[in-house]
Amino acid sequence: MNITLAQAESVITAAKQKATEINTKMNIAVVDAGSNLVAFVHMDGGWIGSVDISIKKAKTAAWFQMDTKALTPLVGPGQPLFNIEHSNGGLITFPGGVILKDESGEIIGAIGVSGSTVDDDHEVAEAGASAVK
Amino acid sequence: MNITLAQAESVITAAKQKATEINTKMNIAVVDAGSNLVAFVHMDGGWIGSVDISIKKAKTAAWFQMDTKALTPLVGPGQPLFNIEHSNGGLITFPGGVILKDESGEIIGAIGVSGSTVDDDHEVAEAGASAVK
Amino acid sequence: MNITLAQAESVITAAKQKATEINTKMNIAVVDAGSNLVAFVHMDGGWIGSVDISIKKAKTAAWFQMDTKALTPLVGPGQPLFNIEHSNGGLITFPGGVILKDESGEIIGAIGVSGSTVDDDHEVAEAGASAVK
Amino acid sequence: MNITLAQAESVITAAKQKATEINTKMNIAVVDAGSNLVAFVHMDGGWIGSVDISIKKAKTAAWFQMDTKALTPLVGPGQPLFNIEHSNGGLITFPGGVILKDESGEIIGAIGVSGSTVDDDHEVAEAGASAVK
Repeated sequence: MNITLAQAESVITAAKQKATEINTKMNIAVVDAGSNLVAFVHMDGGWIGSVDISIKKAKTAAWFQMDTKALTPLVGPGQPLFNIEHSNGGLITFPGGVILKDESGEIIGAIGVSGSTVDDDHEVAEAGASAVK
Repeated sequence: MNITLAQAESVITAAKQKATEINTKMNIAVVDAGSNLVAFVHMDGGWIGSVDISIKKAKTAAWFQMDTKALTPLVGPGQPLFNIEHSNGGLITFPGGVILKDESGEIIGAIGVSGSTVDDDHEVAEAGASAVK
Repeated sequence: MNITLAQAESVITAAKQKATEINTKMNIAVVDAGSNLVAFVHMDGGWIGSVDISIKKAKTAAWFQMDTKALTPLVGPGQPLFNIEHSNGGLITFPGGVILKDESGEIIGAIGVSGSTVDDDHEVAEAGASAVK
Repeated sequence: MNITLAQAESVITAAKQKATEINTKMNIAVVDAGSNLVAFVHMDGGWIGSVDISIKKAKTAAWFQMDTKALTPLVGPGQPLFNIEHSNGGLITFPGGVILKDESGEIIGAIGVSGSTVDDDHEVAEAGASAVK
Protein backbone atom coordinates (compact mmCIF):
# COMPACT_ATOMS: atom_id res chain seq x y z
CA MET A 1 0.00 0.00 0.00
CA ASN A 2 1.16 3.46 -0.88
CA ILE A 3 -0.05 6.73 0.55
CA THR A 4 -2.80 8.45 -1.43
CA LEU A 5 -2.70 12.13 -2.33
CA ALA A 6 -5.65 12.75 0.02
CA GLN A 7 -3.66 11.20 2.87
CA ALA A 8 -0.54 13.15 1.92
CA GLU A 9 -2.53 16.37 1.94
CA SER A 10 -3.86 15.60 5.42
CA VAL A 11 -0.28 14.96 6.55
CA ILE A 12 0.83 18.30 5.12
CA THR A 13 -2.11 20.16 6.64
CA ALA A 14 -1.33 18.77 10.10
CA ALA A 15 2.37 19.56 9.72
CA LYS A 16 1.67 23.13 8.55
CA GLN A 17 -0.64 23.69 11.52
CA LYS A 18 2.05 22.54 13.96
CA ALA A 19 4.69 24.65 12.16
CA THR A 20 2.49 27.72 12.56
CA GLU A 21 1.80 26.92 16.22
CA ILE A 22 5.51 26.83 17.06
CA ASN A 23 6.21 29.89 14.92
CA THR A 24 8.36 28.30 12.21
CA LYS A 25 8.43 28.49 8.40
CA MET A 26 8.87 24.97 7.13
CA ASN A 27 9.42 23.06 3.93
CA ILE A 28 7.34 19.87 4.08
CA ALA A 29 7.65 16.91 1.70
CA VAL A 30 5.71 13.65 1.55
CA VAL A 31 6.93 10.63 -0.43
CA ASP A 32 5.34 7.25 -0.98
CA ALA A 33 6.76 3.90 0.16
CA GLY A 34 8.84 3.80 -3.05
CA SER A 35 10.37 7.22 -2.16
CA ASN A 36 8.61 9.09 -4.98
CA LEU A 37 7.39 12.62 -4.22
CA VAL A 38 3.63 12.86 -3.58
CA ALA A 39 3.17 16.35 -2.13
CA PHE A 40 5.26 19.34 -1.08
CA VAL A 41 4.81 22.83 0.33
CA HIS A 42 7.24 25.66 1.04
CA MET A 43 5.86 28.05 3.68
CA ASP A 44 6.26 31.76 2.87
CA GLY A 45 9.66 33.09 3.87
CA GLY A 46 11.10 29.66 4.66
CA TRP A 47 14.70 28.77 3.77
CA ILE A 48 14.91 27.80 0.12
CA GLY A 49 17.94 25.60 0.91
CA SER A 50 15.50 23.48 2.89
CA VAL A 51 13.38 22.59 -0.16
CA ASP A 52 15.95 19.97 -1.11
CA ILE A 53 16.68 18.97 2.51
CA SER A 54 13.02 18.26 3.30
CA ILE A 55 12.71 16.08 0.20
CA LYS A 56 15.96 14.25 0.99
CA LYS A 57 14.84 13.64 4.60
CA ALA A 58 11.58 12.09 3.39
CA LYS A 59 13.38 9.95 0.81
CA THR A 60 16.04 8.85 3.31
CA ALA A 61 13.34 7.71 5.76
CA ALA A 62 11.45 5.85 3.02
CA TRP A 63 14.63 4.26 1.61
CA PHE A 64 15.63 2.80 4.98
CA GLN A 65 12.16 2.35 6.51
CA MET A 66 13.10 4.31 9.62
CA ASP A 67 13.06 7.86 10.95
CA THR A 68 16.16 9.81 10.01
CA LYS A 69 16.94 10.37 13.69
CA ALA A 70 17.46 6.60 14.01
CA LEU A 71 20.30 6.96 11.49
CA THR A 72 21.96 9.92 13.23
CA PRO A 73 23.97 7.91 15.83
CA LEU A 74 25.16 5.49 13.15
CA VAL A 75 26.74 7.95 10.72
CA GLY A 76 29.35 9.78 12.81
CA PRO A 77 33.12 9.19 12.57
CA GLY A 78 33.96 5.67 13.72
CA GLN A 79 30.35 4.54 13.48
CA PRO A 80 29.19 1.74 11.16
CA LEU A 81 27.49 3.89 8.51
CA PHE A 82 29.99 6.77 8.44
CA ASN A 83 29.46 8.87 5.29
CA ILE A 84 26.49 6.87 4.04
CA GLU A 85 25.26 10.31 2.85
CA HIS A 86 27.29 9.78 -0.34
CA SER A 87 24.79 7.19 -1.59
CA ASN A 88 21.56 7.69 -3.54
CA GLY A 89 22.49 11.13 -4.81
CA GLY A 90 22.70 12.49 -1.26
CA LEU A 91 21.08 11.47 2.03
CA ILE A 92 20.15 13.66 5.01
CA THR A 93 20.67 11.72 8.24
CA PHE A 94 19.72 14.20 10.95
CA PRO A 95 16.21 14.46 12.48
CA GLY A 96 13.17 15.62 10.50
CA GLY A 97 12.40 12.58 8.35
CA VAL A 98 9.65 10.37 9.79
CA ILE A 99 8.09 7.16 8.50
CA LEU A 100 4.37 7.26 7.74
CA LYS A 101 2.35 4.23 8.81
CA ASP A 102 -1.35 3.63 8.33
CA GLU A 103 -3.75 2.39 11.03
CA SER A 104 -2.61 -1.19 10.53
CA GLY A 105 1.02 -0.26 11.07
CA GLU A 106 2.08 -0.72 7.47
CA ILE A 107 4.61 1.73 6.04
CA ILE A 108 2.90 3.84 3.35
CA GLY A 109 5.50 6.57 2.88
CA ALA A 110 7.51 9.19 4.76
CA ILE A 111 7.46 12.89 5.62
CA GLY A 112 10.49 15.19 5.62
CA VAL A 113 10.52 18.60 7.30
CA SER A 114 13.23 21.26 7.20
CA GLY A 115 13.35 24.94 8.13
CA SER A 116 14.18 25.32 11.82
CA THR A 117 16.17 23.42 14.48
CA VAL A 118 16.27 19.67 13.99
CA ASP A 119 14.11 19.27 17.10
CA ASP A 120 11.45 21.57 15.64
CA ASP A 121 11.74 19.80 12.30
CA HIS A 122 11.17 16.40 13.94
CA GLU A 123 8.24 17.71 16.01
CA VAL A 124 6.51 19.04 12.92
CA ALA A 125 7.16 15.79 11.04
CA GLU A 126 5.63 13.79 13.91
CA ALA A 127 2.58 16.05 13.87
CA GLY A 128 2.22 15.34 10.17
CA ALA A 129 2.66 11.60 10.64
CA SER A 130 -0.06 11.47 13.28
CA ALA A 131 -2.64 12.46 10.66
CA VAL A 132 -2.56 9.02 9.01
CA LYS A 133 -2.07 6.76 12.03
CA MET B 1 7.16 39.72 -6.26
CA ASN B 2 7.13 36.00 -5.69
CA ILE B 3 4.08 33.77 -5.49
CA THR B 4 2.83 33.01 -1.97
CA LEU B 5 2.00 29.51 -0.78
CA ALA B 6 -1.70 30.46 -0.61
CA GLN B 7 -1.57 31.50 -4.25
CA ALA B 8 0.33 28.35 -5.22
CA GLU B 9 -2.26 26.21 -3.47
CA SER B 10 -5.08 27.93 -5.38
CA VAL B 11 -3.17 27.26 -8.62
CA ILE B 12 -2.84 23.58 -7.74
CA THR B 13 -6.49 23.26 -6.72
CA ALA B 14 -7.62 24.73 -10.05
CA ALA B 15 -5.23 22.50 -11.99
CA LYS B 16 -6.33 19.37 -10.13
CA GLN B 17 -9.97 20.17 -10.82
CA LYS B 18 -9.30 20.51 -14.55
CA ALA B 19 -7.22 17.31 -14.54
CA THR B 20 -10.12 15.44 -12.97
CA GLU B 21 -12.61 16.96 -15.43
CA ILE B 22 -10.64 15.69 -18.42
CA ASN B 23 -10.00 12.34 -16.75
CA THR B 24 -6.21 12.55 -16.33
CA LYS B 25 -3.81 11.83 -13.47
CA MET B 26 -1.34 14.67 -13.33
CA ASN B 27 1.82 15.74 -11.54
CA ILE B 28 1.57 19.47 -10.83
CA ALA B 29 4.46 21.67 -9.69
CA VAL B 30 4.54 25.38 -8.84
CA VAL B 31 7.80 27.35 -8.58
CA ASP B 32 8.43 30.99 -7.67
CA ALA B 33 9.92 33.60 -10.01
CA GLY B 34 13.41 32.46 -8.96
CA SER B 35 12.51 28.86 -9.97
CA ASN B 36 12.43 27.48 -6.41
CA LEU B 37 9.75 24.86 -5.68
CA VAL B 38 6.73 26.20 -3.75
CA ALA B 39 4.14 23.42 -4.03
CA PHE B 40 3.70 20.04 -5.68
CA VAL B 41 1.12 17.26 -5.94
CA HIS B 42 1.17 13.83 -7.58
CA MET B 43 -2.34 12.59 -8.35
CA ASP B 44 -3.03 8.95 -7.43
CA GLY B 45 -1.93 6.53 -10.13
CA GLY B 46 -0.11 9.20 -12.14
CA TRP B 47 3.19 8.45 -13.89
CA ILE B 48 6.06 8.75 -11.43
CA GLY B 49 8.43 9.62 -14.27
CA SER B 50 6.38 12.79 -14.57
CA VAL B 51 7.25 14.00 -11.06
CA ASP B 52 10.57 15.28 -12.36
CA ILE B 53 9.14 16.39 -15.71
CA SER B 54 6.47 18.57 -14.09
CA ILE B 55 9.10 20.23 -11.88
CA LYS B 56 11.46 20.76 -14.83
CA LYS B 57 8.63 22.24 -16.94
CA ALA B 58 7.83 24.75 -14.20
CA LYS B 59 11.50 25.64 -13.75
CA THR B 60 12.06 25.98 -17.51
CA ALA B 61 9.14 28.41 -17.80
CA ALA B 62 10.38 30.47 -14.84
CA TRP B 63 13.99 30.47 -16.06
CA PHE B 64 13.03 31.83 -19.50
CA GLN B 65 9.93 33.85 -18.53
CA MET B 66 7.79 32.10 -21.16
CA ASP B 67 5.55 29.07 -21.55
CA THR B 68 7.48 25.95 -22.50
CA LYS B 69 5.39 25.62 -25.67
CA ALA B 70 6.99 28.87 -26.89
CA LEU B 71 10.34 27.06 -26.76
CA THR B 72 9.17 23.95 -28.63
CA PRO B 73 9.54 25.29 -32.21
CA LEU B 74 13.01 26.68 -31.38
CA VAL B 75 14.71 23.52 -30.15
CA GLY B 76 14.33 21.00 -32.99
CA PRO B 77 17.15 19.91 -35.33
CA GLY B 78 18.27 22.87 -37.41
CA GLN B 79 16.51 25.35 -35.13
CA PRO B 80 18.33 28.08 -33.19
CA LEU B 81 18.21 26.52 -29.71
CA PHE B 82 18.85 22.87 -30.66
CA ASN B 83 19.87 20.88 -27.57
CA ILE B 84 19.37 23.76 -25.11
CA GLU B 85 17.98 21.02 -22.84
CA HIS B 86 21.56 20.23 -21.76
CA SER B 87 21.67 23.43 -19.68
CA ASN B 88 20.56 24.02 -16.11
CA GLY B 89 20.70 20.37 -15.15
CA GLY B 90 18.04 19.50 -17.72
CA LEU B 91 15.23 21.47 -19.35
CA ILE B 92 11.87 20.24 -20.62
CA THR B 93 10.89 22.20 -23.73
CA PHE B 94 7.56 20.68 -24.77
CA PRO B 95 4.16 22.04 -23.65
CA GLY B 96 2.97 21.92 -20.04
CA GLY B 97 4.99 24.71 -18.40
CA VAL B 98 3.10 27.99 -18.08
CA ILE B 99 4.14 31.35 -16.62
CA LEU B 100 2.12 32.61 -13.66
CA LYS B 101 1.30 36.31 -13.66
CA ASP B 102 -0.61 38.23 -11.03
CA GLU B 103 -3.44 40.67 -11.72
CA SER B 104 -0.98 43.43 -12.58
CA GLY B 105 0.71 41.22 -15.20
CA GLU B 106 3.92 40.70 -13.23
CA ILE B 107 5.56 37.26 -13.38
CA ILE B 108 5.31 35.65 -9.94
CA GLY B 109 6.28 32.06 -10.81
CA ALA B 110 5.38 29.18 -13.09
CA ILE B 111 3.35 25.95 -13.14
CA GLY B 112 4.49 22.68 -14.70
CA VAL B 113 2.11 19.81 -15.47
CA SER B 114 2.97 16.33 -16.70
CA GLY B 115 1.04 13.06 -16.89
CA SER B 116 -0.95 12.91 -20.13
CA THR B 117 -0.60 14.21 -23.70
CA VAL B 118 1.24 17.52 -23.98
CA ASP B 119 -2.01 19.16 -25.05
CA ASP B 120 -3.74 17.93 -21.91
CA ASP B 121 -0.73 18.95 -19.83
CA HIS B 122 -0.86 22.48 -21.24
CA GLU B 123 -4.63 22.75 -20.75
CA VAL B 124 -4.33 21.78 -17.10
CA ALA B 125 -1.44 24.21 -16.61
CA GLU B 126 -3.51 27.04 -18.12
CA ALA B 127 -6.39 26.19 -15.80
CA GLY B 128 -3.99 26.46 -12.87
CA ALA B 129 -2.55 29.75 -14.10
CA SER B 130 -6.02 31.30 -14.39
CA ALA B 131 -6.41 31.05 -10.60
CA VAL B 132 -3.96 33.91 -9.95
CA LYS B 133 -4.70 36.19 -12.88
CA MET C 1 13.56 42.72 -3.38
CA ASN C 2 16.54 41.29 -5.22
CA ILE C 3 19.94 42.89 -5.58
CA THR C 4 20.50 44.85 -8.80
CA LEU C 5 23.58 44.42 -10.98
CA ALA C 6 24.71 47.94 -10.04
CA GLN C 7 24.54 46.99 -6.36
CA ALA C 8 26.32 43.69 -7.00
CA GLU C 9 29.10 45.51 -8.84
CA SER C 10 29.56 47.91 -5.90
CA VAL C 11 29.78 44.88 -3.58
CA ILE C 12 32.45 43.31 -5.77
CA THR C 13 34.43 46.55 -6.07
CA ALA C 14 34.51 46.94 -2.27
CA ALA C 15 35.49 43.30 -1.79
CA LYS C 16 38.27 43.48 -4.39
CA GLN C 17 39.67 46.61 -2.72
CA LYS C 18 39.80 44.85 0.66
CA ALA C 19 41.34 41.74 -0.93
CA THR C 20 44.10 43.87 -2.43
CA GLU C 21 44.67 45.72 0.86
CA ILE C 22 45.28 42.47 2.72
CA ASN C 23 47.35 41.05 -0.12
CA THR C 24 45.10 38.19 -1.20
CA LYS C 25 43.83 36.91 -4.56
CA MET C 26 40.16 36.17 -4.19
CA ASN C 27 37.25 34.68 -6.07
CA ILE C 28 34.16 36.77 -5.32
CA ALA C 29 30.58 35.77 -6.17
CA VAL C 30 27.30 37.63 -5.63
CA VAL C 31 23.90 35.91 -5.82
CA ASP C 32 20.38 37.29 -5.48
CA ALA C 33 17.91 36.38 -2.72
CA GLY C 34 16.80 33.38 -4.80
CA SER C 35 20.46 32.17 -4.98
CA ASN C 36 20.90 32.91 -8.70
CA LEU C 37 24.34 34.23 -9.77
CA VAL C 38 24.42 37.99 -10.43
CA ALA C 39 28.13 38.81 -10.64
CA PHE C 40 31.51 37.11 -10.24
CA VAL C 41 35.20 37.92 -10.48
CA HIS C 42 38.34 35.79 -10.23
CA MET C 43 41.38 37.88 -9.26
CA ASP C 44 44.54 37.18 -11.26
CA GLY C 45 46.51 34.25 -9.89
CA GLY C 46 43.78 33.18 -7.48
CA TRP C 47 43.01 29.52 -6.82
CA ILE C 48 40.76 28.15 -9.54
CA GLY C 49 39.38 25.57 -7.13
CA SER C 50 37.90 28.54 -5.31
CA VAL C 51 35.72 29.60 -8.25
CA ASP C 52 33.18 26.97 -7.30
CA ILE C 53 33.71 27.44 -3.54
CA SER C 54 32.97 31.16 -3.69
CA ILE C 55 29.77 30.52 -5.65
CA LYS C 56 28.69 27.74 -3.26
CA LYS C 57 29.40 29.98 -0.22
CA ALA C 58 27.19 32.72 -1.66
CA LYS C 59 24.42 30.24 -2.50
CA THR C 60 24.62 28.58 0.92
CA ALA C 61 24.23 31.96 2.68
CA ALA C 62 21.27 32.89 0.46
CA TRP C 63 19.61 29.48 0.83
CA PHE C 64 19.68 29.64 4.64
CA GLN C 65 19.45 33.42 5.14
CA MET C 66 22.57 33.48 7.33
CA ASP C 67 26.35 33.86 7.08
CA THR C 68 28.10 30.56 6.42
CA LYS C 69 30.13 31.00 9.61
CA ALA C 70 26.86 30.67 11.57
CA LEU C 71 26.55 27.16 10.11
CA THR C 72 30.12 26.10 10.93
CA PRO C 73 29.55 25.10 14.60
CA LEU C 74 26.42 23.13 13.64
CA VAL C 75 27.87 20.78 11.03
CA GLY C 76 30.74 18.98 12.78
CA PRO C 77 30.61 15.34 13.91
CA GLY C 78 28.01 14.96 16.65
CA GLN C 79 26.43 18.30 15.84
CA PRO C 80 22.81 18.71 14.67
CA LEU C 81 23.46 19.38 10.98
CA PHE C 82 26.32 16.91 10.38
CA ASN C 83 26.78 16.30 6.66
CA ILE C 84 24.16 18.86 5.57
CA GLU C 85 26.68 19.60 2.79
CA HIS C 86 25.22 16.71 0.79
CA SER C 87 22.09 18.77 0.03
CA ASN C 88 21.43 21.22 -2.79
CA GLY C 89 24.20 19.83 -5.00
CA GLY C 90 26.85 20.74 -2.43
CA LEU C 91 27.04 23.33 0.34
CA ILE C 92 30.09 25.11 1.75
CA THR C 93 29.63 25.67 5.48
CA PHE C 94 32.85 27.38 6.58
CA PRO C 95 33.30 31.18 6.75
CA GLY C 96 33.28 33.40 3.67
CA GLY C 97 29.59 33.54 2.75
CA VAL C 98 27.82 36.65 4.02
CA ILE C 99 24.20 37.79 3.69
CA LEU C 100 23.62 41.07 1.85
CA LYS C 101 21.01 43.38 3.36
CA ASP C 102 19.88 46.73 2.02
CA GLU C 103 19.51 49.90 4.11
CA SER C 104 16.12 48.77 5.37
CA GLY C 105 17.57 45.48 6.63
CA GLU C 106 15.91 43.31 3.99
CA ILE C 107 17.91 40.38 2.56
CA ILE C 108 18.64 41.10 -1.10
CA GLY C 109 21.28 38.43 -1.79
CA ALA C 110 24.60 37.08 -0.56
CA ILE C 111 28.34 37.32 -1.26
CA GLY C 112 30.77 34.39 -1.24
CA VAL C 113 34.54 34.82 -1.08
CA SER C 114 37.22 32.13 -1.40
CA GLY C 115 40.97 32.24 -2.00
CA SER C 116 42.80 32.64 1.31
CA THR C 117 42.26 31.66 4.96
CA VAL C 118 38.64 31.47 6.02
CA ASP C 119 39.21 34.51 8.25
CA ASP C 120 40.51 36.50 5.29
CA ASP C 121 37.65 35.22 3.16
CA HIS C 122 35.09 36.37 5.74
CA GLU C 123 36.77 39.77 6.15
CA VAL C 124 36.64 40.39 2.41
CA ALA C 125 33.02 39.25 2.25
CA GLU C 126 32.09 41.66 5.07
CA ALA C 127 33.84 44.49 3.23
CA GLY C 128 31.76 43.69 0.17
CA ALA C 129 28.53 43.50 2.17
CA SER C 130 29.13 46.93 3.70
CA ALA C 131 28.78 48.50 0.25
CA VAL C 132 25.00 47.97 0.17
CA LYS C 133 24.08 48.53 3.83
CA MET D 1 48.80 33.43 -21.86
CA ASN D 2 45.52 33.68 -20.04
CA ILE D 3 43.17 36.61 -19.94
CA THR D 4 43.60 38.93 -16.94
CA LEU D 5 40.71 40.13 -14.82
CA ALA D 6 41.26 43.67 -16.14
CA GLN D 7 40.91 42.37 -19.70
CA ALA D 8 37.86 40.31 -18.79
CA GLU D 9 36.24 43.36 -17.24
CA SER D 10 36.86 45.37 -20.40
CA VAL D 11 35.27 42.55 -22.41
CA ILE D 12 32.21 42.59 -20.15
CA THR D 13 31.93 46.38 -20.25
CA ALA D 14 31.97 46.36 -24.06
CA ALA D 15 29.43 43.53 -24.18
CA LYS D 16 27.10 45.23 -21.69
CA GLN D 17 27.25 48.45 -23.74
CA LYS D 18 26.26 46.60 -26.92
CA ALA D 19 23.51 44.71 -25.06
CA THR D 20 22.05 48.02 -23.88
CA GLU D 21 22.34 49.54 -27.37
CA ILE D 22 20.28 46.75 -28.91
CA ASN D 23 17.82 46.75 -26.00
CA THR D 24 18.55 43.31 -24.55
CA LYS D 25 19.14 41.96 -21.02
CA MET D 26 22.07 39.62 -21.22
CA ASN D 27 24.01 37.16 -19.10
CA ILE D 28 27.70 37.54 -19.96
CA ALA D 29 30.46 35.12 -18.90
CA VAL D 30 34.21 35.24 -19.54
CA VAL D 31 36.45 32.21 -19.08
CA ASP D 32 40.21 31.84 -19.45
CA ALA D 33 41.98 29.61 -21.99
CA GLY D 34 41.63 26.71 -19.52
CA SER D 35 37.82 27.26 -19.43
CA ASN D 36 37.80 28.52 -15.82
CA LEU D 37 35.37 31.34 -15.00
CA VAL D 38 37.03 34.78 -14.73
CA ALA D 39 34.09 37.20 -14.70
CA PHE D 40 30.32 37.16 -15.01
CA VAL D 41 27.38 39.57 -14.96
CA HIS D 42 23.61 39.07 -15.08
CA MET D 43 21.83 42.19 -16.35
CA ASP D 44 18.72 43.20 -14.37
CA GLY D 45 15.62 41.34 -15.50
CA GLY D 46 17.53 38.93 -17.74
CA TRP D 47 16.54 35.26 -17.98
CA ILE D 48 17.99 33.33 -15.05
CA GLY D 49 18.04 30.17 -17.17
CA SER D 50 20.67 31.96 -19.24
CA VAL D 51 23.14 32.22 -16.36
CA ASP D 52 24.15 28.62 -16.96
CA ILE D 53 23.84 28.87 -20.76
CA SER D 54 26.20 31.86 -20.97
CA ILE D 55 28.80 30.06 -18.87
CA LYS D 56 28.43 26.85 -20.91
CA LYS D 57 28.78 28.80 -24.18
CA ALA D 58 32.02 30.38 -22.97
CA LYS D 59 33.38 27.03 -21.77
CA THR D 60 32.36 25.26 -24.99
CA ALA D 61 34.23 27.87 -27.06
CA ALA D 62 37.32 27.61 -24.84
CA TRP D 63 37.25 23.80 -24.79
CA PHE D 64 37.23 23.55 -28.58
CA GLN D 65 39.11 26.77 -29.42
CA MET D 66 36.37 27.96 -31.75
CA ASP D 67 33.18 30.02 -31.68
CA THR D 68 30.12 27.98 -30.76
CA LYS D 69 28.50 28.91 -34.08
CA ALA D 70 31.27 26.94 -35.81
CA LEU D 71 30.00 23.87 -33.99
CA THR D 72 26.33 24.41 -34.86
CA PRO D 73 26.38 22.81 -38.36
CA LEU D 74 28.31 19.80 -37.01
CA VAL D 75 25.93 18.70 -34.25
CA GLY D 76 22.61 18.11 -36.02
CA PRO D 77 21.17 14.65 -36.81
CA GLY D 78 23.41 12.82 -39.31
CA GLN D 79 26.28 15.22 -38.73
CA PRO D 80 29.66 14.13 -37.38
CA LEU D 81 29.33 15.51 -33.85
CA PHE D 82 25.67 14.69 -33.27
CA ASN D 83 24.85 14.90 -29.54
CA ILE D 84 28.33 16.05 -28.50
CA GLU D 85 26.40 18.12 -25.93
CA HIS D 86 26.42 15.08 -23.64
CA SER D 87 30.13 15.57 -22.91
CA ASN D 88 31.80 17.74 -20.30
CA GLY D 89 28.73 18.03 -18.09
CA GLY D 90 26.80 19.73 -20.90
CA LEU D 91 27.81 21.80 -23.92
CA ILE D 92 25.88 24.58 -25.66
CA THR D 93 26.54 24.48 -29.39
CA PHE D 94 24.43 27.32 -30.77
CA PRO D 95 25.76 30.86 -31.36
CA GLY D 96 26.82 33.17 -28.52
CA GLY D 97 30.18 31.71 -27.48
CA VAL D 98 33.16 33.52 -29.03
CA ILE D 99 36.89 32.93 -28.69
CA LEU D 100 38.93 35.78 -27.19
CA LYS D 101 42.27 36.48 -28.85
CA ASP D 102 44.81 39.11 -27.86
CA GLU D 103 46.52 41.52 -30.27
CA SER D 104 49.00 38.84 -31.32
CA GLY D 105 46.19 36.44 -32.23
CA GLU D 106 46.77 34.08 -29.35
CA ILE D 107 43.70 32.54 -27.67
CA ILE D 108 43.42 33.91 -24.12
CA GLY D 109 39.88 32.80 -23.25
CA ALA D 110 36.27 32.97 -24.42
CA ILE D 111 33.08 34.92 -23.88
CA GLY D 112 29.59 33.45 -23.67
CA VAL D 113 26.42 35.52 -23.99
CA SER D 114 22.80 34.40 -23.50
CA GLY D 115 19.54 36.26 -23.05
CA SER D 116 18.02 37.07 -26.46
CA THR D 117 18.00 35.55 -29.96
CA VAL D 118 21.14 33.64 -30.87
CA ASP D 119 21.97 36.36 -33.42
CA ASP D 120 21.77 39.04 -30.71
CA ASP D 121 23.77 36.84 -28.36
CA HIS D 122 26.52 36.40 -30.96
CA GLU D 123 26.56 40.12 -31.78
CA VAL D 124 27.03 41.04 -28.12
CA ALA D 125 29.73 38.40 -27.71
CA GLU D 126 31.60 39.79 -30.74
CA ALA D 127 31.36 43.29 -29.26
CA GLY D 128 32.90 41.96 -26.07
CA ALA D 129 35.65 40.11 -27.93
CA SER D 130 36.64 43.25 -29.83
CA ALA D 131 37.73 44.87 -26.56
CA VAL D 132 40.87 42.70 -26.31
CA LYS D 133 41.84 42.38 -29.97
